[in-house]
Amino acid sequence: MSEIAHLGPVELLTPSAELSLAFFVDVLGMEIEGRDGGSVYLRGWGDYQRYSLVLSESAQPGMAWLGLRASSQAALERRVATVAASGLGEGWSEGARGRGPSYGFRDPDGHRFELYYECDRYEAPKHLRPALKNQPQRYLGRGAAVKRLDHVNVLAADVRASREFAQQALGYRLHERIELDDGSEAGAWLSASIAAHELIYTRDAYGARGRLHHLAFWVDTREECLRAADLFLEHDIQIEAAPSKHAIAQGFFLYGIEPGGNRIEVTTGGYLVYDPEHPTVVWTQEERARGQAWGVHTVESFHTYGTPPIEAAGDRP
Amino acid sequence: MSEIAHLGPVELLTPSAELSLAFFVDVLGMEIEGRDGGSVYLRGWGDYQRYSLVLSESAQPGMAWLGLRASSQAALERRVATVAASGLGEGWSEGARGRGPSYGFRDPDGHRFELYYECDRYEAPKHLRPALKNQPQRYLGRGAAVKRLDHVNVLAADVRASREFAQQALGYRLHERIELDDGSEAGAWLSASIAAHELIYTRDAYGARGRLHHLAFWVDTREECLRAADLFLEHDIQIEAAPSKHAIAQGFFLYGIEPGGNRIEVTTGGYLVYDPEHPTVVWTQEERARGQAWGVHTVESFHTYGTPPIEAAGDRP
Amino acid sequence: MSEIAHLGPVELLTPSAELSLAFFVDVLGMEIEGRDGGSVYLRGWGDYQRYSLVLSESAQPGMAWLGLRASSQAALERRVATVAASGLGEGWSEGARGRGPSYGFRDPDGHRFELYYECDRYEAPKHLRPALKNQPQRYLGRGAAVKRLDHVNVLAADVRASREFAQQALGYRLHERIELDDGSEAGAWLSASIAAHELIYTRDAYGARGRLHHLAFWVDTREECLRAADLFLEHDIQIEAAPSKHAIAQGFFLYGIEPGGNRIEVTTGGYLVYDPEHPTVVWTQEERARGQAWGVHTVESFHTYGTPPIEAAGDRP
Amino acid sequence: MSEIAHLGPVELLTPSAELSLAFFVDVLGMEIEGRDGGSVYLRGWGDYQRYSLVLSESAQPGMAWLGLRASSQAALERRVATVAASGLGEGWSEGARGRGPSYGFRDPDGHRFELYYECDRYEAPKHLRPALKNQPQRYLGRGAAVKRLDHVNVLAADVRASREFAQQALGYRLHERIELDDGSEAGAWLSASIAAHELIYTRDAYGARGRLHHLAFWVDTREECLRAADLFLEHDIQIEAAPSKHAIAQGFFLYGIEPGGNRIEVTTGGYLVYDPEHPTVVWTQEERARGQAWGVHTVESFHTYGTPPIEAAGDRP
Repeated sequence: MSEIAHLGPVELLTPSAELSLAFFVDVLGMEIEGRDGGSVYLRGWGDYQRYSLVLSESAQPGMAWLGLRASSQAALERRVATVAASGLGEGWSEGARGRGPSYGFRDPDGHRFELYYECDRYEAPKHLRPALKNQPQRYLGRGAAVKRLDHVNVLAADVRASREFAQQALGYRLHERIELDDGSEAGAWLSASIAAHELIYTRDAYGARGRLHHLAFWVDTREECLRAADLFLEHDIQIEAAPSKHAIAQGFFLYGIEPGGNRIEVTTGGYLVYDPEHPTVVWTQEERARGQAWGVHTVESFHTYGTPPIEAAGDRP
Repeated sequence: MSEIAHLGPVELLTPSAELSLAFFVDVLGMEIEGRDGGSVYLRGWGDYQRYSLVLSESAQPGMAWLGLRASSQAALERRVATVAASGLGEGWSEGARGRGPSYGFRDPDGHRFELYYECDRYEAPKHLRPALKNQPQRYLGRGAAVKRLDHVNVLAADVRASREFAQQALGYRLHERIELDDGSEAGAWLSASIAAHELIYTRDAYGARGRLHHLAFWVDTREECLRAADLFLEHDIQIEAAPSKHAIAQGFFLYGIEPGGNRIEVTTGGYLVYDPEHPTVVWTQEERARGQAWGVHTVESFHTYGTPPIEAAGDRP
Repeated sequence: MSEIAHLGPVELLTPSAELSLAFFVDVLGMEIEGRDGGSVYLRGWGDYQRYSLVLSESAQPGMAWLGLRASSQAALERRVATVAASGLGEGWSEGARGRGPSYGFRDPDGHRFELYYECDRYEAPKHLRPALKNQPQRYLGRGAAVKRLDHVNVLAADVRASREFAQQALGYRLHERIELDDGSEAGAWLSASIAAHELIYTRDAYGARGRLHHLAFWVDTREECLRAADLFLEHDIQIEAAPSKHAIAQGFFLYGIEPGGNRIEVTTGGYLVYDPEHPTVVWTQEERARGQAWGVHTVESFHTYGTPPIEAAGDRP
Repeated sequence: MSEIAHLGPVELLTPSAELSLAFFVDVLGMEIEGRDGGSVYLRGWGDYQRYSLVLSESAQPGMAWLGLRASSQAALERRVATVAASGLGEGWSEGARGRGPSYGFRDPDGHRFELYYECDRYEAPKHLRPALKNQPQRYLGRGAAVKRLDHVNVLAADVRASREFAQQALGYRLHERIELDDGSEAGAWLSASIAAHELIYTRDAYGARGRLHHLAFWVDTREECLRAADLFLEHDIQIEAAPSKHAIAQGFFLYGIEPGGNRIEVTTGGYLVYDPEHPTVVWTQEERARGQAWGVHTVESFHTYGTPPIEAAGDRP
């Protein structure tokens, strides 16, 4: 196990708190673990922590911070030392809901991270107790019934700088990346585990900093992605990209825009990286021009839109 | 199109009205179309009629009657004439909720049928209006989210007599049947359409009359049957037969017992019979002893239990 | 059952006989039932007839004729009388491979049909005998392993004329259609059974006559369509439209171009039409502009390309 | 990443070399990477190494040895030192086909392991080159088309002893286990990654040593497990347990007996263990008596049969 056990929770901002909450509860099928001020704490039925998503009202959509759980107290201390040495640290803060002290920092692009180790494990209340004891919560099948937070894709003005930081300071492994003809890096797929990707950096089309491309929630089957598309349709959620298969990382996807404006993916599939010396797969500009695995060309907005949106540029999904 | 367009609605009896209703709404995911006296009218999201199931409180579980819609007014009249001539007719009655006059009769085993032609087509209220206009109702994905009533399996003391009546008086086609070594008939799979089965007669292990083996509701994918099994598990619904594939008719199944005691199937798959002269497939006793398609042997109760149960015999699922 | 039991076999023309055959055998997974002159007879594992596809070498791709099996000898005679009265009949011919006499005619757009009743049922040779006796052939799972021919979509300069002929002369039911703002008909989905569509007419973008849009082969699950897309990709078969869900008829699709130039669909899903008085669903121009069920916009070629291609117009998939 | 990157390759013994090979190639859909003496080297389309299975002719079925790849040269050396100190080491041997030196040892139950670090990465020959560059080999979809070796379940006379050795000497994490009422351990599910299980020890019903329960090969979807069951049926491969869902580890399974007598699983599903301090889930005797997730009770042979079989006891699947 690497020094980062996994990412999450993540705090997501929305200017339409009520509608966003309805989306996460009724359409994605998450449970409300609690509320606190202007925030609602949400979880998938397979999340082992109390929550994986903090949904907070804000003037603009976007991601406030991304949590990273270290794999041990010692790992936490080593990572904090490394990050602090990089000059990007912002210091310790008291534990948030259900977790111990966390160390805040920003990646070179300016996204806020919170690194921690101690946290509560979820204890389901009676009505959410699962039939199988190796499952944190009852599966109710409501909406898309996402299992857990899977990965986060942030945008970066300089992908390479943030990607190298994630590797060097945090210990992420780089599984795939895109290198354009001019030598610049357009995307990087990183993981701290055998999952093909957990943290993704892709280029911000506007050169903006600190923006979010999407949060991805896991379902166990492709059929559940197809079913989620029907639910998005019936709930009038904008489908930005209908279910299909990515070439990079081979994940199966459905992308929609939640009512607050953030892009949300329902994902499954892909491959596991068991090779400890897995050579990074490098995609060229020409290869990317072929579209997704089955030739689907994602709409233009997929390559430009992020949150918060760039108002002046008319950045709209 | 044959003279019978399809079967349904069906009236199901339950001694546990409240719990049965919770099962059909929360676990199977049907919608309540209306209530009337001690009955609740329920529908799948793909049923074109107003309802396909009438759930009524009663001292004993079982099926009160099975509706059959004729394919036209003329077809209705011809079928009524034939049935009446058989001596099994019980006469016309006023239209029930949302349908015109119906003619009641009993098959040789004593199950009550109601034959009708006129009926209302479902008009979804605003909150259930579908995104696609070729769908009668919004798909909400609640519970197993069954699409529609698919088929009915009744028990009969004399399978052959009732099967021949269904063919001769009603025009059903016989697609598959079981013939035991002693020449008796243990089961018959009949259809009025290209679906492999709509009406099934299987032998009543107690030689009782008029009992129900199960009602089957359709889902479009095997994944939905597997998902339904998880939901049965989480809702503490007794799973009598976990998802697997039938040898006969090749349907994919999940069988459970609803709280009122009736056996309910969630089904998909099978084959369509396009051959207008399809030769009936006859299964021998030895072939049936091999179990289902993948060798699964259904539990003993599957071959004996029906509703109403035979109390003296300790007939329990 | 209507007077037409089902469509098929169909004779498909290809200028690349060897490559097309490799496609149907290795990629679609059909079996060769026999050869005869320049033709190869092919079948899916679920086809009850000896073959559903005749693949023949020719200078141009396209469909030579479309077989229609009547549901009885009497039905055949009644349909022939009606067709002959319409003036579109071309007379009887001797039985082709494995079937009795057939009556040829052309629809108003000029597509050739062959109407017959007598035909051989498939008898699997030893190495293709199925484990389950209600299945015509062993399932080997090679390639996409299509089960059977499902439907045929032809192009027509005047959709309405051919659609009305199919209803009036052949007895097809019209389940869905597209009516443009100018009142013209852009597509019609017809069926002789409870399947949502069997015969489709869509408008020929060039006003040409007698062209084919696509042949569709059935698989039982959406997962098999996704799997077929991977196989198309690995076999370098052009994917014209990646798997997604149609709005019209709600079928799940994958479209590719076989090496001879004909468009082939791998399909599943959709709905069954049990309502004997099903009101035709009419889609407007505006509704069609929204794309497929999940918002996918099919590529331009999907709306223009047919076989034989219109050379002068540069009609290329 | 832990010090063990993954398990495999494994050498499987068979007294029916030809039939076993046909099973792995035609039914499971593996590729032959090479041959060498009495051994055939086989691979799934997603295996990154040259092969994951060595199939060798032998008087008796069973597992000859189980490979373990260390995550680095340093990790290899540390693990060898630990294992050697335990007294179970058997020393270094020259590199086998495509890999560097390996250190052999036996677990307390007597199963042979080979620990190594250096190995070749697979380079697909032209006809097996994949369309997507992040995939080691072309996906051809033949047979069950298993993707890769997933996990190995060995039997042990003393589960606890071998399980503790795997944790202490090799660094495996214990995710789930069965503890009977008498305090003895009946099974242990171990993993070196976030996968819920990679190495499983279950109790040998005969108290024998060094036997194999099964090898499991991964497919990406439950639909592929169902499809594999159809292929087992059509190829006359004994299905010991039809597709269903395990309670422990929640994997979806299909178990069959290959012609040489070894039990083989086709598996998918389950959950990932992101919690670095995941508390071991302990199942009681009573809980296990409830059967698998959906109540399926596996046949008696599943709890007794292993390879090599115990002849005197009439140990037969």
